[in-house]
Amino acid sequence: MAGGSGTRFWPKSRTSFPKQFLTLGGPRTLLRQTFDRVVDLVGKEQIYIVTAAQHAEHAREAVPELPPDHVLVEPIGRNTAPCIGWATARITGLDPDARIAVLPSDHYIADERAFRSHLEAAFEAAGDRIVLFGIVPTHPETGYGYIRRGIELATSIGMPILGVERFVEKPDRETAIGYLAEQRYLWNSGMFVFPGRLMAAEIARLLPDLHRGLEELMKTPSALEKIYPSLPSISIDYGVMERSQHIAVLPATFGWSDVGSWDAVMAIETPDEHGNVVRGDAVLVDVKNTLVEAQAGRLVAAVDVGDLIIVDTKDALLIVRRGESQRVKHIVDALKAKKRDDLL
Amino acid sequence: MAGGSGTRFWPKSRTSFPKQFLTLGGPRTLLRQTFDRVVDLVGKEQIYIVTAAQHAEHAREAVPELPPDHVLVEPIGRNTAPCIGWATARITGLDPDARIAVLPSDHYIADERAFRSHLEAAFEAAGDRIVLFGIVPTHPETGYGYIRRGIELATSIGMPILGVERFVEKPDRETAIGYLAEQRYLWNSGMFVFPGRLMAAEIARLLPDLHRGLEELMKTPSALEKIYPSLPSISIDYGVMERSQHIAVLPATFGWSDVGSWDAVMAIETPDEHGNVVRGDAVLVDVKNTLVEAQAGRLVAAVDVGDLIIVDTKDALLIVRRGESQRVKHIVDALKAKKRDDLL
Repeated sequence: MAGGSGTRFWPKSRTSFPKQFLTLGGPRTLLRQTFDRVVDLVGKEQIYIVTAAQHAEHAREAVPELPPDHVLVEPIGRNTAPCIGWATARITGLDPDARIAVLPSDHYIADERAFRSHLEAAFEAAGDRIVLFGIVPTHPETGYGYIRRGIELATSIGMPILGVERFVEKPDRETAIGYLAEQRYLWNSGMFVFPGRLMAAEIARLLPDLHRGLEELMKTPSALEKIYPSLPSISIDYGVMERSQHIAVLPATFGWSDVGSWDAVMAIETPDEHGNVVRGDAVLVDVKNTLVEAQAGRLVAAVDVGDLIIVDTKDALLIVRRGESQRVKHIVDALKAKKRDDLL
Repeated sequence: MAGGSGTRFWPKSRTSFPKQFLTLGGPRTLLRQTFDRVVDLVGKEQIYIVTAAQHAEHAREAVPELPPDHVLVEPIGRNTAPCIGWATARITGLDPDARIAVLPSDHYIADERAFRSHLEAAFEAAGDRIVLFGIVPTHPETGYGYIRRGIELATSIGMPILGVERFVEKPDRETAIGYLAEQRYLWNSGMFVFPGRLMAAEIARLLPDLHRGLEELMKTPSALEKIYPSLPSISIDYGVMERSQHIAVLPATFGWSDVGSWDAVMAIETPDEHGNVVRGDAVLVDVKNTLVEAQAGRLVAAVDVGDLIIVDTKDALLIVRRGESQRVKHIVDALKAKKRDDLL
């Protein structure tokens, strides 16, 4: 899934250039990292990207070796259920027995080998279930949804597959601390594996309008521009996950982040001995715990500052206190109010 | 005097573009402000600029109405005594009775009307003296040299002209606090007025090598390139001021700064209600006591920071903690060490 847009990484991300196309947590874009992470396991012929019309060109550039018809271009974003339903319909049309992994293209994973082991286990366990990746929490995160785990259902390549007792919304800090202590909660990673046939059946049962729209689309693919906008806009979480009886969770510890903010970037990068993360050309004197993203062809110089996030681009510069990077949205809102579309 | 070079205003000032060509304390360059401040009083035909070869073009652009031969171009900088000696020789050659004001082109003056009153008084008092402008201290500044004032010598347009007991070097903070309390010390502004004949005589008496060189230069102006580099490199302070018996000081309170650092810029600009000084395009959210210099065509956005100096240029960005801007030299030194002449 590479349809996401957003401005939490402004000024690097823009409306036309969202997070999945940024190089975060390494020299490759997040989309490219996501592709590279699985291509040796499944082969490029088995990979599909669903993206938005305005991002299709960037997506193709990021993964030029992908067969052209494996990029599914949504004429308009309709949330995750139509996106996943469409890909599922396409893939099960080719192979009714396919097992499918849904992977957001803008996440970071530290231990890619461990990730692949979990993915193999999930494919194996997904004979008659939708198997979610549930991340074992490392801190009381308030930015993620949680899954309360149930009893052990099975084991797959030595990994336990658990039932899901319930899904819970992003908690406040106190609640998150409780979840961490209780050790029964996992972060909902938004990554999952399922038999295509099961997902299609659950969509038919739980989201009949979507099911009919997708059937129509499979019959008349040329009517995409007309049909797709009419699909119900709903998330796979609300539409299927929270209502299906066939959900399981695979606990995972491979170091995962949805990279939701510049602060999250600092958490996934390896700082130098002063706690700084520096990308690009910089001269730092007495600078600590600071993220510097310098634009090619420009120098960032800093003296006697700390706990800053400094992001320099060709037309805009952001400086925000560390820990406050979610407030970048205030800048974006101000630019919208000023109709500065050139900077959005 | 517009020969100064320096990098205390890096990244705005560069080797080829020093402070006098920056727009600080208003929309005009400091050089232009200096010209405008006196032109109505003396007329452009009475104004000379001494500058360095690499700055001559910028100087002519800043003051295009100046007669071309009123820009004296030093082939090489030899400190202030040759600079002032040369201009004095040129001017007294045209008018032996001329009274001359020497004004650095990179200073800021808040109350220009008061400045002109003082300048008139100094011209009047400079019949047989070198009259220095001594600024009444407003705070215990450690960045300026001081003048210990002596007895009152005369009055000029109602302003007292005082003797000079002695010159003192830049003091440490404790000493500066003592000077402020004692009320007998004035800041040495580096601005002064004198009869051309007296300065020429003092140079002949105190700096005979310079005198001979200047005589030669007046005889053979075409030999400038050969003669000027041979002149002794010495400041007017050491060479004349501290050794002459004809020095007086005019106390002044017109709001003066030699604008020696980015912190000094904050002191001369009028901050907004959050204590910020913003020049250029900026969006600030919860930002206090911060200087923002934005480059044309670029936006500076900041969230939840304070006491910063942010200077953005087309190829380099500086962020330094307020109060520490003299440490910009560490950046410049680092760039020199890296041979980054493109940024110097």
